[in-house]
Amino acid sequence: MFKKFKIPDATIGRLTAYSRFLKEAEEKGISTVSSQNIAEATGVTPAQVRKDLAYFGEFGTRGVGYNPKELYNYIMKILGLDKKWNVAIFGAGNLGTALSQYRGFLERGFEIVCMFDTDPEKVGKKLNAIDIFHLDELKEKAKELNIELAIVAVPAQAAQEVVNMIVEAGIRGIINFAPVNIFVPDNIVLRRVDLASQLEYLTYYLGENR
Amino acid sequence: MFKKFKIPDATIGRLTAYSRFLKEAEEKGISTVSSQNIAEATGVTPAQVRKDLAYFGEFGTRGVGYNPKELYNYIMKILGLDKKWNVAIFGAGNLGTALSQYRGFLERGFEIVCMFDTDPEKVGKKLNAIDIFHLDELKEKAKELNIELAIVAVPAQAAQEVVNMIVEAGIRGIINFAPVNIFVPDNIVLRRVDLASQLEYLTYYLGENR
Repeated sequence: MFKKFKIPDATIGRLTAYSRFLKEAEEKGISTVSSQNIAEATGVTPAQVRKDLAYFGEFGTRGVGYNPKELYNYIMKILGLDKKWNVAIFGAGNLGTALSQYRGFLERGFEIVCMFDTDPEKVGKKLNAIDIFHLDELKEKAKELNIELAIVAVPAQAAQEVVNMIVEAGIRGIINFAPVNIFVPDNIVLRRVDLASQLEYLTYYLGENR
Repeated sequence: MFKKFKIPDATIGRLTAYSRFLKEAEEKGISTVSSQNIAEATGVTPAQVRKDLAYFGEFGTRGVGYNPKELYNYIMKILGLDKKWNVAIFGAGNLGTALSQYRGFLERGFEIVCMFDTDPEKVGKKLNAIDIFHLDELKEKAKELNIELAIVAVPAQAAQEVVNMIVEAGIRGIINFAPVNIFVPDNIVLRRVDLASQLEYLTYYLGENR
C-alpha cells in the first residue's frame, strides 16, 4: 500500500515525532492543526512537514490544516503501529532491565512479552512481572508467545550468535544495542542503536573546530 | 573552520560509522580504502560516501582511494573527537547504571566522570568506581570536574527540572533519554534518544500495510 519508493530514515523518525504531537493535540481537544503548528512542536520547518507527508499522499485541507486524530491514525498506520507488537529482550543485565521498564514502549503498542538470558541466577525468575527464559527455549517461546521483534542487549562478543538464533527462530525485526556490527540475511530488518554516536551529534556542534 | 553550511544529521551519523570502519582498516594494516569499501562496510552507496565527505573538503586521491589513518583523523576532527570529553550521567537507576558501564563511550573519548541522583541510598556511593553525587552539588562539581556533556536518564516527570539545573551549571551538550520533550535555550545542544522510535523503524518496514 505505501512504500512505493524509498522513504528516508529521517522521515520515519520525524513521522514518529509528528504523531506524538498530534496525539497531544487531540487529547487537548484541538480540532485543526497547521503544518506550522506541527513544525514548531517538533523543531523542523513547515516545508519539511509537508514534504514528509507528501511521500504518503495528500492530507488536510489547503488553507485550513489537518484534523489531528485523522492524521495521527494515518501516520500510525504508515509506521505499522495500527497493531500491537510482541517484543522480547535478549540480555537481562542493566541495559535489558532498564529497557524492560521503559514506559515509552507500551504507549506506542510495544509489549515486552519475555526476556532471555543464559545466567542460571536469572533464568526462571521474573523481572517486573516479565519472565526470563533460557536462550535454549527461544524457538519454542517465539512460537508460543508470537514474538515479532527482538531487542538485543547482550555483551558485544555474544551479539552475533544471539542474533543468529533470533533469525533462526523466525523473528524478523531486530534492534541491536551491543556496540558491534551484526550481520543478518536480507529479509531481516536490523537497526543498530549506537549510544556513543548519539554523543557525537553533540560534539560535532560543540567541537572547538567551529 | 567547518560548518560553513548546515550538514544533515544523517551525514553526521554516517561519518561516525565511516570512522569506525577506517579505524578497523588501519588496525588491520590496510593502506588504501575506496569509497566502495567504506560503502560496503557501512551499508550505504559509494556516491553517498563521496557526497558526505564533500561537505568538508577534498579527500583521497582520484582512482586510488583514501589513506585510512588520515581520513580517520580528519573525520574525528570534524566530529569534535580530536579531544576527550567529560560526561556526567544524571539518574543512577537501571538506565543510568547501564550507560555508566557502556564500553563504547570510552572507546570514542567520552569519559564518565561522575553521576548525579537524589536518592539518599545512592548519593555518596560509587558505581563501578564512578562517584554518585547529590544533584545539589551539580554547580560545584561541574566546575571542579569540568563536566562538558550531560546524559539525562531520570524519570520523565523530573527531566525538565534536571535539564534546567544542567543548563544553569554551564553544561552545553545534553542527551535526553527520558521519554518527554525538553526545552533548552538556543545556545544549548540537546538531543533526545527516543527508544520507542527505534522500534518504529522496524515496524515501518515490517508493518502489514506494505
